[in-house]
Amino acid sequence: MTTFSNVTVLGAGVLGAQIAFQIANHGVAVNSYDVDDDAIAAARGRLTSLVEQYTGDVGEAHRAAAQTAAGRISFFTDLAAAVADADLVIEAVPENLELKRDIYARLAVAAPPHTVFATNSSTLLPSQIMDSTGRPDRFLALHFANHIWRQNTAEIMGTDQTSPEVFQRVVAFAEDIGMVPIPLHKEQPGYVLNSLLVPFLAAGAGLVLTGVADPETVDKTWRIGTGAPAGPFQIFDVVGLRTAHAISAASDDPGSRMWADYLEANYISQGKLGVESGEGFYKYR
Amino acid sequence: MTTFSNVTVLGAGVLGAQIAFQIANHGVAVNSYDVDDDAIAAARGRLTSLVEQYTGDVGEAHRAAAQTAAGRISFFTDLAAAVADADLVIEAVPENLELKRDIYARLAVAAPPHTVFATNSSTLLPSQIMDSTGRPDRFLALHFANHIWRQNTAEIMGTDQTSPEVFQRVVAFAEDIGMVPIPLHKEQPGYVLNSLLVPFLAAGAGLVLTGVADPETVDKTWRIGTGAPAGPFQIFDVVGLRTAHAISAASDDPGSRMWADYLEANYISQGKLGVESGEGFYKYR
Repeated sequence: MTTFSNVTVLGAGVLGAQIAFQIANHGVAVNSYDVDDDAIAAARGRLTSLVEQYTGDVGEAHRAAAQTAAGRISFFTDLAAAVADADLVIEAVPENLELKRDIYARLAVAAPPHTVFATNSSTLLPSQIMDSTGRPDRFLALHFANHIWRQNTAEIMGTDQTSPEVFQRVVAFAEDIGMVPIPLHKEQPGYVLNSLLVPFLAAGAGLVLTGVADPETVDKTWRIGTGAPAGPFQIFDVVGLRTAHAISAASDDPGSRMWADYLEANYISQGKLGVESGEGFYKYR
Repeated sequence: MTTFSNVTVLGAGVLGAQIAFQIANHGVAVNSYDVDDDAIAAARGRLTSLVEQYTGDVGEAHRAAAQTAAGRISFFTDLAAAVADADLVIEAVPENLELKRDIYARLAVAAPPHTVFATNSSTLLPSQIMDSTGRPDRFLALHFANHIWRQNTAEIMGTDQTSPEVFQRVVAFAEDIGMVPIPLHKEQPGYVLNSLLVPFLAAGAGLVLTGVADPETVDKTWRIGTGAPAGPFQIFDVVGLRTAHAISAASDDPGSRMWADYLEANYISQGKLGVESGEGFYKYR
């Protein structure tokens, strides 16, 4: 028995699909909503791939359970129908403030009064969204990381209007579905992980941009000096150079924009996107 | 046969003693210089402890070799005698610019013309010292980390006047004595490791200072998110909270000085100094 019995996930993109699958894989029926039939068809395909990726990762013995889990997900293109019985709605739509505010305004009307809303936004703060929800006391951020099933974190961050009881129930639910809950006491752009990762990666980028050392040397120094399995450029390759580029290009800091240009000129324009493309700072496979 | 046959280490403090021992342990006779007989007596005691620490770390089977290595170290209080035949002088005296410039001015006269000088300074740049050496082409930084013998890094950093051939010989020597050489192409305050570590630790400190999350939560997030064995507060405990305090207190950044005050008030004043005292952010043993 999980803390929330009826859960709806809005948005069936890469992470939305993983969130729905992770919840279903812990025995909960999930409604997955996306905008139209094409999006739902894509989501079904994504779910099939996810079962393959998951069983490839955790072992064939888990295939039947994963298929049963996938079967617990129902797809909807009608928002009102998708959330009619929801105790918890997790929103994982694209990172666009107006889009999110618009969907919360519709949710505010469509969902029952008791429903808790959680945004998976990486870059927006819940306080930027809360007034559009009609229920700021039952609204917070619940932020998942890619490859959810790998004993991964779920960062939980409320606003100053989030009810402490709602916050604790979402922490408990994160634990119910196999996540390691990371409760934040205050709003913090980037949550905990990206608040550490962004300056760390920027420091590595700075050493390469200024010609102090090459990526391999920087990574080796970090691995030996701290015992970590990966230095900043190995992490860049996992994050993906397009994502790193987008974050750096959006920054006000001139050094960050130089780094975006450097990534574009030396890697992205040559199809080197990191692990996903088989080559980034390093070659894979 | 190492790249340099006769090596003198100036300063027989914690790191100076480890450097002398590491070199001697790779078959090279080392002269260890310190200011007076009391300092030399302390250095002999330190060397005895080092042999214990080293054999405790790498195994009793290495005790005889470690004792032989310790026997290859000769102690001097006369600078001219200590460096008369030196091919390489490694300077590991306290981090004080005037003190270092003064010792290099004396070295410039006492050492043979061919002798290469290397500073182990963590915080001063070799360009701040080079004109006092009388031989800027044969002068650079060779920076060791604590617990030298643990397959550790030696960061090598020249000035724009360092001869490339001298630079390469020092890189080769670092490898000769079992270090992983980290060559820097330019001067960089903090070398590679501290250039990554300082902003990373500052980011962790910021999350705790602003009350976003507690140290354990921050560390757990980093460990899970990156697979590293240690988060920022585990690293603070290893570095030592007095060292962390000294670095933060010396900074121009108000956030860093707040962190220094926080460390003093909550940890250092209560004798919690990190791993060395048995307790810091965590308890040990």
